[in-house]
Amino acid sequence: MSLLDRQRVQLLTLQRIIGGELKRFDTVFDGMMSGETPLIEAVCAHVRHGKSKRFRPTLLLLAAKHEDAVPDAAITAAACVEMIHTATLLHDDIIDEATTRRGLPSINHAWDVATAVVMGDYLYSKALDVLASARMGEALRLLAGTTFKMSQAEMMQLETRHDLGISEETYLTIIERKTASLIESACAIGAGFHPEHAQRTGVFGEFGRKIGFVFQITDDIFDYLGDERRLGKPTGQDWEEGRITLPLIAALRQAPTTACDALLAEVAAVPPGERNLLWPRVKAFVLEHGGVDYARDLARRLGDEGKSALAPVAAGAQKDLLTVAVEYVLRRLN
Amino acid sequence: MSLLDRQRVQLLTLQRIIGGELKRFDTVFDGMMSGETPLIEAVCAHVRHGKSKRFRPTLLLLAAKHEDAVPDAAITAAACVEMIHTATLLHDDIIDEATTRRGLPSINHAWDVATAVVMGDYLYSKALDVLASARMGEALRLLAGTTFKMSQAEMMQLETRHDLGISEETYLTIIERKTASLIESACAIGAGFHPEHAQRTGVFGEFGRKIGFVFQITDDIFDYLGDERRLGKPTGQDWEEGRITLPLIAALRQAPTTACDALLAEVAAVPPGERNLLWPRVKAFVLEHGGVDYARDLARRLGDEGKSALAPVAAGAQKDLLTVAVEYVLRRLN
Repeated sequence: MSLLDRQRVQLLTLQRIIGGELKRFDTVFDGMMSGETPLIEAVCAHVRHGKSKRFRPTLLLLAAKHEDAVPDAAITAAACVEMIHTATLLHDDIIDEATTRRGLPSINHAWDVATAVVMGDYLYSKALDVLASARMGEALRLLAGTTFKMSQAEMMQLETRHDLGISEETYLTIIERKTASLIESACAIGAGFHPEHAQRTGVFGEFGRKIGFVFQITDDIFDYLGDERRLGKPTGQDWEEGRITLPLIAALRQAPTTACDALLAEVAAVPPGERNLLWPRVKAFVLEHGGVDYARDLARRLGDEGKSALAPVAAGAQKDLLTVAVEYVLRRLN
Repeated sequence: MSLLDRQRVQLLTLQRIIGGELKRFDTVFDGMMSGETPLIEAVCAHVRHGKSKRFRPTLLLLAAKHEDAVPDAAITAAACVEMIHTATLLHDDIIDEATTRRGLPSINHAWDVATAVVMGDYLYSKALDVLASARMGEALRLLAGTTFKMSQAEMMQLETRHDLGISEETYLTIIERKTASLIESACAIGAGFHPEHAQRTGVFGEFGRKIGFVFQITDDIFDYLGDERRLGKPTGQDWEEGRITLPLIAALRQAPTTACDALLAEVAAVPPGERNLLWPRVKAFVLEHGGVDYARDLARRLGDEGKSALAPVAAGAQKDLLTVAVEYVLRRLN
């Protein structure tokens, strides 16, 4: 069985357990992801076609899952989380001038930048409005905070573009706000619907935060190593778009000064628009000086911390499921 | 005294009455409109320099004003309303490819589109996060709904760009969501802080909605007539950017069929990118066929409805002040 198959099976195994909930999620999400006017509907239909892995809704629903039925409000919350995630992708694609997303033309490419700006605003504000109208105050409060953190992270990312001096600390702050924060909120909101866990949503949030880190670090590693899962996605995209991520940050710290200086001199000699020519050189540098190994070790450690975060939760099916979710994210590294 | 001076005096008169509150507003707004990183701070400082008329905060604070001090929460809410308004301007300038705003280079022009996209998201989500953190649930709920309506209106505006067949009904729906909705929320939120009016915020909201319509219709009229207040702003911007507004919609309805057909044929013969060449022709058509007169009459009628909406409020200083606010907006038409 190929790596691709193994990964699919594992996420599908998890998703089969909440199959009924995910079916309800799909109905609610598709209903929300539709429009009042022909243009809104056309963009929504385009986005619906590019199916996501539904990773964040899966975690939210796993945290909410208990013997009694998962309430409709949890399904609504999952749809709002996925919608906020989708909104950020639309704006990300403008920033990166991306032409494709999930195997389809990106909105900024298929329509134009104006449509992508407004549709991002539309999806984001619709998600918050749905929560507000449903009087789901706590989820609204958490997600308002999360979206603010995500926009801070986007600004920090613009600010450190092409900056080879970026520290590991700054990198971790960016990915915490950009990626971990929404996964943290998804898990905390999910637990809030579980009769036994509603009083300790913080435990589930901390679990989500840790595996959010792992999720982003593994993505950043894949940009160096390639990944069968990301069929058709070339490596080196982060480098080309100026995102300096953990493997390179670690390699620059671990390499001898002379090797670093040589690389920095080569980079400085090339205008930012042509840095993609240096990609093979950068990739070799990162592999040679243990940048990927460092990032992989940190991801595994954070994965273990994620599992440990669940210690206050009594052993049981739900704890097992969430532990499997960590394995799924980490497995991508093997 | 020139028209410009009369208008200034009138808004300043109103603002003098809430001078202390506006001073507190400035402090809170400037504090919120500042950043965690050098780039965020630089953009915020740039935005702070282009001072606004503070029309929405003025209305909110007038509605909240009573003998006892206006609470800090009202000041915070006013700052959040102004921040949401500012966020929409950043995204509007991307859509219109504007190069200036309030006499300064626009953010998309001074920095780039990516920075304007993310800073719009930043200001918008920061406003909602401030309300969420302050546990101001009702204001958060209202403003989440408002921002959703504003994004719907932006999509409708993109969708009807250059569409000379747009109906008055569609135009009114767009300006209700784009402009009236935020002014409605500002007035309703303000009244919620007034001990006597907290139970009838809907009355103040309805008042705000009506004068929001008036505010936008007068702006659209100014785009035909010019306005000393908008020094340096050329007329015909709406036409150039494809926004078909009430004066033209009304003129097309009122003009004889032959006159309409002649205009439509001329427009059809010109590619959208060169339509600004037709501006003198369009302006003459609108004036000749009473488009401005119709829009002005509707604005006055809506202004009267705004004043009538306050009927359930007992006579008193506050009612007088808000009535003066309507006069200020309408005065712009004389």
